[in-house]
Amino acid sequence: MSEFKTVRGMRDFLSDEAEMLRYVEGTARRVAGLYGYEEIVTPVVESYELLAAKAGEEVRSRMFVFKDLGGRDVALRPEFTASVARLVATTLRNEPRPFRLFSVGAVYRYDEPQRGRYREFWQSNYELMGSKRPEADAEIMLLTDSLMRKAGLNRFAFKIGHVGVLRGILNQEKVEDKTQSAVMQLMDKKQYDEALRKVEDAGVSRECMTVLRRLVEFSGKDVLAVAGEIGVLVEGYEKAVEAAKNLREILGLLLESGCKTEMTVEAGFARGLEYYTGLIFEVYVPDMDIALGGGGRYDRLIELFGGEPTPAVGVAHGIDRIMLGVQTQKNAQRLEKAKSAMVIPIKEELRGEALKIAQMLRDASVMVEVEVMGRKMAKALEDADRRKMDYAVIVGERELKEEAVVIRNLRKRVQETVKIQRMTERMENQSTA
Amino acid sequence: MSEFKTVRGMRDFLSDEAEMLRYVEGTARRVAGLYGYEEIVTPVVESYELLAAKAGEEVRSRMFVFKDLGGRDVALRPEFTASVARLVATTLRNEPRPFRLFSVGAVYRYDEPQRGRYREFWQSNYELMGSKRPEADAEIMLLTDSLMRKAGLNRFAFKIGHVGVLRGILNQEKVEDKTQSAVMQLMDKKQYDEALRKVEDAGVSRECMTVLRRLVEFSGKDVLAVAGEIGVLVEGYEKAVEAAKNLREILGLLLESGCKTEMTVEAGFARGLEYYTGLIFEVYVPDMDIALGGGGRYDRLIELFGGEPTPAVGVAHGIDRIMLGVQTQKNAQRLEKAKSAMVIPIKEELRGEALKIAQMLRDASVMVEVEVMGRKMAKALEDADRRKMDYAVIVGERELKEEAVVIRNLRKRVQETVKIQRMTERMENQSTA
Repeated sequence: MSEFKTVRGMRDFLSDEAEMLRYVEGTARRVAGLYGYEEIVTPVVESYELLAAKAGEEVRSRMFVFKDLGGRDVALRPEFTASVARLVATTLRNEPRPFRLFSVGAVYRYDEPQRGRYREFWQSNYELMGSKRPEADAEIMLLTDSLMRKAGLNRFAFKIGHVGVLRGILNQEKVEDKTQSAVMQLMDKKQYDEALRKVEDAGVSRECMTVLRRLVEFSGKDVLAVAGEIGVLVEGYEKAVEAAKNLREILGLLLESGCKTEMTVEAGFARGLEYYTGLIFEVYVPDMDIALGGGGRYDRLIELFGGEPTPAVGVAHGIDRIMLGVQTQKNAQRLEKAKSAMVIPIKEELRGEALKIAQMLRDASVMVEVEVMGRKMAKALEDADRRKMDYAVIVGERELKEEAVVIRNLRKRVQETVKIQRMTERMENQSTA
Repeated sequence: MSEFKTVRGMRDFLSDEAEMLRYVEGTARRVAGLYGYEEIVTPVVESYELLAAKAGEEVRSRMFVFKDLGGRDVALRPEFTASVARLVATTLRNEPRPFRLFSVGAVYRYDEPQRGRYREFWQSNYELMGSKRPEADAEIMLLTDSLMRKAGLNRFAFKIGHVGVLRGILNQEKVEDKTQSAVMQLMDKKQYDEALRKVEDAGVSRECMTVLRRLVEFSGKDVLAVAGEIGVLVEGYEKAVEAAKNLREILGLLLESGCKTEMTVEAGFARGLEYYTGLIFEVYVPDMDIALGGGGRYDRLIELFGGEPTPAVGVAHGIDRIMLGVQTQKNAQRLEKAKSAMVIPIKEELRGEALKIAQMLRDASVMVEVEVMGRKMAKALEDADRRKMDYAVIVGERELKEEAVVIRNLRKRVQETVKIQRMTERMENQSTA
């Protein structure tokens, strides 16, 4: 028989990896709670029409698409935003604004597998809908900041831009939407020369090209100053000036809120997806070459899904990448573990008693494994050692007559007879260190 | 534009439902920890070959099957056991026994949607591999018992049977495997007459038919006695007698462990899947007509997946059904919520300060929403009321000069000026009741 394997691009999370995945997922949920984001759980399988409505061609061509048994065109979600937008445009249509919505789970893209990139990967996703104000943009960045810190990262930074600056210029120069999108995609890939050539070919003014050439290379860490200078640079392009002002306001709020995270404003920063309308940002780890998360403002998205006009700002974080970042920085939060014990009956007749004592320990939140292999004591203790358990609880006839058991501290290698009533108390008083 | 919808059979979990789903999922994870089950996270997409290897025709025909972009035949998992078996037969092949493995997540079956039944549904899954002993069987039932209680159910019961009794008789009577499987499936559907007719057609002895006729209707709540009587009834069928003895041993251990849950042994109880070899059981709520979970022993499964012979016992629980059961019994655990507050700046210039104060409150584990709509105070307070928040924290210029804010208790409708340093202390001392 051929050996069964995971499908190419898919993977298993075992032991520490699974624990870390659930830890970061739980942290994302905790952060959602702290910021008032309500969790929604949407299906992995959505209609192809919904998922394709918003995705750029690049994502669309990499979706897991198929027909269900009823002949419906469906796909596995490549991200969460389409599902959230569906809800906001339908079920939540008449609910008062703002919405703060949180999702977390697996998403699916048929990418070429490589280190840290799988075809099933995990995201946390936050969307704040209904507010067009800069404090909403600042909030989405602040919760990203909180998530990174609480997940255990201590070195990370923000890269920040504003789609409105470039769009403002191109619109005023009457560059077609389609060309604009192509330009943004080139800029996203840092192909600035090609991007500028495309704009030039569109027949913009010479002054415009001068501004753009300076703009795309403009960046700096003194973010308020940089945003101010961008405003000066684009003078005459009314919407672009407004965008720079909006960016400066968001940054000002971030700094006032006490955020100390390193930030860089890059005027030439673009994100591939076409639907951004304002702030865009990514959070990344300086020594890794990948973004751990990214987002921004997309004020026209809900309309695209048939909903009421609803300004919106959101962010998605790659949970797998956060895990990678935390491992790289070797400072994963030491997960606090409950005490653990293996309960071992010294003979067959005491198996029921052993199960009973195990239940008592579990009621007191001890993690308990019962010996179920019928092994001799020495073998069972060896196994408990290998599994790094704190205690062995040995159930013997003589002790049971006195309503007691033997508790062996596996770290200190000492043991004592303890009344059953006092088992957990005894474990709490003893350190296993 | 046509309105976007969920795909037929799929659903969204919103607010309380999402919270309940995550609560039961978290409870399942906590129980796994208490019993020493290590979580593994396997992919939703597996090879069709793997998933079809073990599934009966009924499940196989209802799988979401498709080709990925690389032309591979894949499917969405209809349950967890095949993925766990894959791991045990490959990656974990050489690890010392026993394994205790836990999985939780969504699984997919193309069933006709109805109340409480969707095409994407949630399961928790526990497997104990490597032990053929009755204490392993008892443990799987005990952890099911713990999960039901901790999830908030107070009325539930076990239905228990043993595949070995009937199989023992049919084997000794030399009934073909294929016929046996057909018989088991008819019994699973409670079509006892058809099942018996099929056995009779296979040409078994008249004595055998007499035993079987009595057996299929044999059941009772005095479980040790019933198991004993089954053993007497099947006398002469050696393997069936052994099976009855094994059942009695498991039940004895359960009772000795202190389990007080109602149990019924049904000699005619069968579960559809062909791979069970010993104990089988379901947990159900008397006033609902569906099982909340079920499992049993399947000692030959790992071999089927190409692994070493590995005795195994496991259980899967329907998380959606547990939610339904808890809602029916109207005794969901009151989820303890952190204190919540809405932070409202009285004018635009104070938005940064408001964000800063929000961060301080979050650092002290208060759930905070910041006013991001630029609304007037009265409107914002109304919204905080509607969202059932505990406090409003009002950020004003005059108070800030004294390093203070106004905290309004939204339940008691009183407010006071409080030093910023003392905000959370003040909230803790006040009850909002």
